[in-house]
Amino acid sequence: MLLMCGLLSLLITPEAHMIIERPTRQSPDDYRNQRALLTRQEADQAFGSSILLTANETIVNKQLRKLKINELAKGYFNPYSFSPARHFFEVLDEINASPLFEFIRAMPKGAVLHAHDTALASTEVIVNATYFPDLWQRGNFTDGHDPEFLFSRAKPTTGGAGWEPVSTVRNRTGADRYDEQIRRLFSLFDEDPLHAYRSINDVWNRFSRIFLALDPIVTYKPVWEYYFREALREFYEDNVMYLEFRGLLPSLYDLDGNTYKPEEVVEIYRTITDEFKATHPGFAGTKFIYAPIRNADDQTLDQYLKLAERLHRQYGDYVVGFDLVGQEDGSRTLLSMVPKLLNLPDSINFVFHAGETNWQGMPSDENLFDAVMLGTKRIGHGYALLKHPVLLKMVKERDICVEINPVSNQVLKLVADYRNHPAAILFTSNFPLVVSSDDPSFWCAAPLSHDFYMAFLGMTGADQDLRVLKQLALNSLRYSLMNEQDKRVAEAIFDHSWNDFINAKVAQILASKRNEV
Amino acid sequence: MLLMCGLLSLLITPEAHMIIERPTRQSPDDYRNQRALLTRQEADQAFGSSILLTANETIVNKQLRKLKINELAKGYFNPYSFSPARHFFEVLDEINASPLFEFIRAMPKGAVLHAHDTALASTEVIVNATYFPDLWQRGNFTDGHDPEFLFSRAKPTTGGAGWEPVSTVRNRTGADRYDEQIRRLFSLFDEDPLHAYRSINDVWNRFSRIFLALDPIVTYKPVWEYYFREALREFYEDNVMYLEFRGLLPSLYDLDGNTYKPEEVVEIYRTITDEFKATHPGFAGTKFIYAPIRNADDQTLDQYLKLAERLHRQYGDYVVGFDLVGQEDGSRTLLSMVPKLLNLPDSINFVFHAGETNWQGMPSDENLFDAVMLGTKRIGHGYALLKHPVLLKMVKERDICVEINPVSNQVLKLVADYRNHPAAILFTSNFPLVVSSDDPSFWCAAPLSHDFYMAFLGMTGADQDLRVLKQLALNSLRYSLMNEQDKRVAEAIFDHSWNDFINAKVAQILASKRNEV
Repeated sequence: MLLMCGLLSLLITPEAHMIIERPTRQSPDDYRNQRALLTRQEADQAFGSSILLTANETIVNKQLRKLKINELAKGYFNPYSFSPARHFFEVLDEINASPLFEFIRAMPKGAVLHAHDTALASTEVIVNATYFPDLWQRGNFTDGHDPEFLFSRAKPTTGGAGWEPVSTVRNRTGADRYDEQIRRLFSLFDEDPLHAYRSINDVWNRFSRIFLALDPIVTYKPVWEYYFREALREFYEDNVMYLEFRGLLPSLYDLDGNTYKPEEVVEIYRTITDEFKATHPGFAGTKFIYAPIRNADDQTLDQYLKLAERLHRQYGDYVVGFDLVGQEDGSRTLLSMVPKLLNLPDSINFVFHAGETNWQGMPSDENLFDAVMLGTKRIGHGYALLKHPVLLKMVKERDICVEINPVSNQVLKLVADYRNHPAAILFTSNFPLVVSSDDPSFWCAAPLSHDFYMAFLGMTGADQDLRVLKQLALNSLRYSLMNEQDKRVAEAIFDHSWNDFINAKVAQILASKRNEV
Repeated sequence: MLLMCGLLSLLITPEAHMIIERPTRQSPDDYRNQRALLTRQEADQAFGSSILLTANETIVNKQLRKLKINELAKGYFNPYSFSPARHFFEVLDEINASPLFEFIRAMPKGAVLHAHDTALASTEVIVNATYFPDLWQRGNFTDGHDPEFLFSRAKPTTGGAGWEPVSTVRNRTGADRYDEQIRRLFSLFDEDPLHAYRSINDVWNRFSRIFLALDPIVTYKPVWEYYFREALREFYEDNVMYLEFRGLLPSLYDLDGNTYKPEEVVEIYRTITDEFKATHPGFAGTKFIYAPIRNADDQTLDQYLKLAERLHRQYGDYVVGFDLVGQEDGSRTLLSMVPKLLNLPDSINFVFHAGETNWQGMPSDENLFDAVMLGTKRIGHGYALLKHPVLLKMVKERDICVEINPVSNQVLKLVADYRNHPAAILFTSNFPLVVSSDDPSFWCAAPLSHDFYMAFLGMTGADQDLRVLKQLALNSLRYSLMNEQDKRVAEAIFDHSWNDFINAKVAQILASKRNEV
């Protein structure tokens, strides 16, 4: 029982001044034993501590611990060299060259439960999309405005004059230079991020601009399909086996003037997922969370909710949840929508973004109360949760999973040093957490590995090890919205990939030891 | 009982998946009532919530809340304008012009329990000290080395040639320019702090250089006395009524070749304090914590401990505690000193610095275990405490006060945005906290007001109010090491100043309302 008691259960105790007995009569040996007991107690309640490692896992763990301690020791004496203390954009190359990162990348990581549909695939996929025929452009990259794009058989007439085929602009500019401009436009990457983005609002503004410029490229049906297929490939290659992603279900278009409504977009997702599963062993599929924009007026919101009900009835096995997206600070609150949300059928799962903010006590922060009270199954971000002791208790009791997105939170200016991320405190207890990647495309991150790296190196203690990583992977399946049967299948797939990974690692370690001898 | 239960007492509950009942059958009114209950529960367990405000305090609180909400609302829509989200050096002028800061500055704040003797007084006091006669200088401010200083009747012979009277250098340089160089040398202030200090080590290095250059100026007995007297004046003017400060007790010198040993330094502190008390009504005095450098070899440490015992026997009513100072990362650990520390008499109070680090699981972080096990009465900083759930529980149970130093922690690169300071989470519960200032001189901060400002605006919620500030002041007396009798006297003095402050504020508010009518 002692091992299960948590950080601040302390507050249950009375406030009386207790007499502090100094252990002066203790021998140094007794002292060390007592101390070992305390450190053991903390280790035994940490995230992942209930996992018992097999003999082979223990061998692999030894290697992993060495990789972690190497990076910690380097940082301890030269803190500026420690990646989690720096901005992600400044250290991306260093991370990609890190043996710890390589380990994490190769490791089966389970599922991504928090990511947005048009920020899944790498920038290269977007660059490739701009090579699709019939893409037009208006405006260039250099002035204050971003260029506009549109797929069209003939020169577009919307928005006025100035449209040129992208192929023409690319030829004139030089393909390398043009593609580099595309990469710049569609990511937040900047060499001097601390000056480029001074506050969360700067990033959200840039963010909205990316979505706006990207929209007419990706909502072109052939690109939409290509993009999603490529995204699945990249997630799969990053050793992610299942994806539960959020999207707005925008209307798609093609060259013949057809538009495709939300139901058809869902069908596309399902079809491509099935095709991908059939050709990629060990991939367990995708599910969709319908997540329209939170900053909607009542009438628009009603339309969203009607669509949510329709999708739930028609595609309940695939459209598994409802959420609302967009910056919480300064936007419409969950509270203001409560009467409408209460009217939705119980069987629609809520998986609300809530508390993606640092403004304690302000309206965005209070979304956490409503997410929990409305019975959310998981919380997106929940960055502010630790500042709400009563809610935190409810979240643990109700086993509501918190979807942590480390890199996203840093890029969006909630925290500078991952060691100060509130989830670092949650990792000291066996809290229902998963690590996810939110919009990996926009910060040039891998589908999941960079977030795992930052969580593991920056947000857990020196002694936390393979058990943390395995627990994160297991949680990502446990807290998914798959039905129980699919979940069992996915867990079996994971066990298999995991054991393959461990066995291959052990073989590699033993081989290199043999070479040493 | 519910109101007393804390952040993570949740971990006591079993892990089983509970069924989440969505309150669909609730009317929006019932929902709002339930929600109000939850927000109320959180408010009722927050820091300061047990204080009941008088009618007059309530009037003043209304004004204070308005001042706080004004700054929060401005920041909510323009986060870059929010001081606690920025580096202290960038926003110092803005804070000094803030009406909220003005309120805090005028308010009786109780005691400072964590500050270091040669970083108490403002840079202006150091500038004045360089006007004392017989001060010599070697080297200038422009090359890589800092200049050296020494008081001496004749030209010093130590360290080689190049000594000149400071008055000569000042005349040659121009007094304004010279004094500005002195200000630069003896503070960490920099217009571009994010580039000047890239990591905690950069700051600690600069820090050590300041101490080194400052030492021969302040250890000149007439300056030492002047400096301490001026420090008391500045603390008093910042509405601090009592000071429990740490120091190394270096040997002092004078022009006649005399040196003054630690006992004599203690006598100086006592004498000046008594003089100051006699002439400054409402000032309750000072006490001293002997705190030598932690990075000492065994032999040196033995000397420190012998001195600690001697001072305890001889000046037990004034030298009230023992601590060790210096950067914890990479330095000698408390654990390595345990056998020696266990041998000290029980009656010497430990008030250890511990966990002033972001390196979870590294040796500096583990100092927290030893501080608590050795029976420390307070913890200096305890920045890493929240990552130690078992220790956190012990700290609360044993009512060990945590001395938070917000500005120090930011300047020393532990945290960039005060809202991510771990104490922001402790403030959501009634945890034994005090706010202090560490080395206000080196960052051009007021003796205590800037730290109160950052704690109040950056580390507590929008709804936390005058009760937080009053609780901090009350705690600073409660957790001091004064004997019970002195404590009662100090508390009575505080009550008096507090009521004067409240009554004056109420009169002011009523007068301005009358003017409006």
